[in-house]
Amino acid sequence: MRHAEFPSQICSIARSLEILGEWWTLLVVREAFFGARRFGEFEANLGIARNVLSDRLSKLVEAGVLDREPEPGRGNPVAYRLTEKGRELLPVLVALMQWGDRWINSGREPVTLVERETGKEIAPLEVASREGRPLRARDLVVTPGPGADAVVERRFGGGKTE
Amino acid sequence: MRHAEFPSQICSIARSLEILGEWWTLLVVREAFFGARRFGEFEANLGIARNVLSDRLSKLVEAGVLDREPEPGRGNPVAYRLTEKGRELLPVLVALMQWGDRWINSGREPVTLVERETGKEIAPLEVASREGRPLRARDLVVTPGPGADAVVERRFGGGKTE
Repeated sequence: MRHAEFPSQICSIARSLEILGEWWTLLVVREAFFGARRFGEFEANLGIARNVLSDRLSKLVEAGVLDREPEPGRGNPVAYRLTEKGRELLPVLVALMQWGDRWINSGREPVTLVERETGKEIAPLEVASREGRPLRARDLVVTPGPGADAVVERRFGGGKTE
Repeated sequence: MRHAEFPSQICSIARSLEILGEWWTLLVVREAFFGARRFGEFEANLGIARNVLSDRLSKLVEAGVLDREPEPGRGNPVAYRLTEKGRELLPVLVALMQWGDRWINSGREPVTLVERETGKEIAPLEVASREGRPLRARDLVVTPGPGADAVVERRFGGGKTE
């Protein structure tokens, strides 16, 4: 699963990218959220080469993001479904989508995510305090967490700010 | 800026990944949030090859995520700073970090983001309605947006659900 170009890093962003950071991987996850189940659906919706798709699906299954289950039918078809680990990628995809909507597609977004029950567009994702105050990067401080190693302690132990 | 492996897609996720999806790019952005300014700081904190770092910084400047400005000092140093477009990547990084904290580092996160003023950990990012109700993927419907093309209309025009 690891990419030869990356050094070993304990950072959760780096480790997430080891799973998600290969070309096409997050678009395969996007398709799973959009309802794709069969290999052929992913292939048709993405216009992706079959060998690349096969590699990305296998790695996502190995990483526990997708489940691979046999389906009834001719030709031993299988279906891919998001696990709970996979479904919890929703904020990652929505954050990328909303950033692209604003900064690349300039507000003319190709698709809008709406709440099923009300038909209303979802809110912009916002980094916030536990009490709900919106926070910007300058309001945040990086501190060592429970899984900090010596490098992290040395770097952020003094309460170094972003 | 585009990667040869990707087809042209109008999806905001795909277009964001054209800018952010190369190996190392989001870790360079992470370092900028952590306070790195000089080439040597990015290099030392990331343990990245100089030619790769140079490429990623140039592309981020070209994409408008970082500004590159001369700094006073010997050897014509330059400083890289996040633009507004760059600072608005905070939810993308926090979403990746929180997912990795939970699903890869199993709650033993190496670093914790806390609010400067209170010292309290930030809240988990949550996809929510405008009224603040938390929403899961099954609560959402994908609909064509103002920038939809014929392909998007055909696929999501009927209110196809996730």
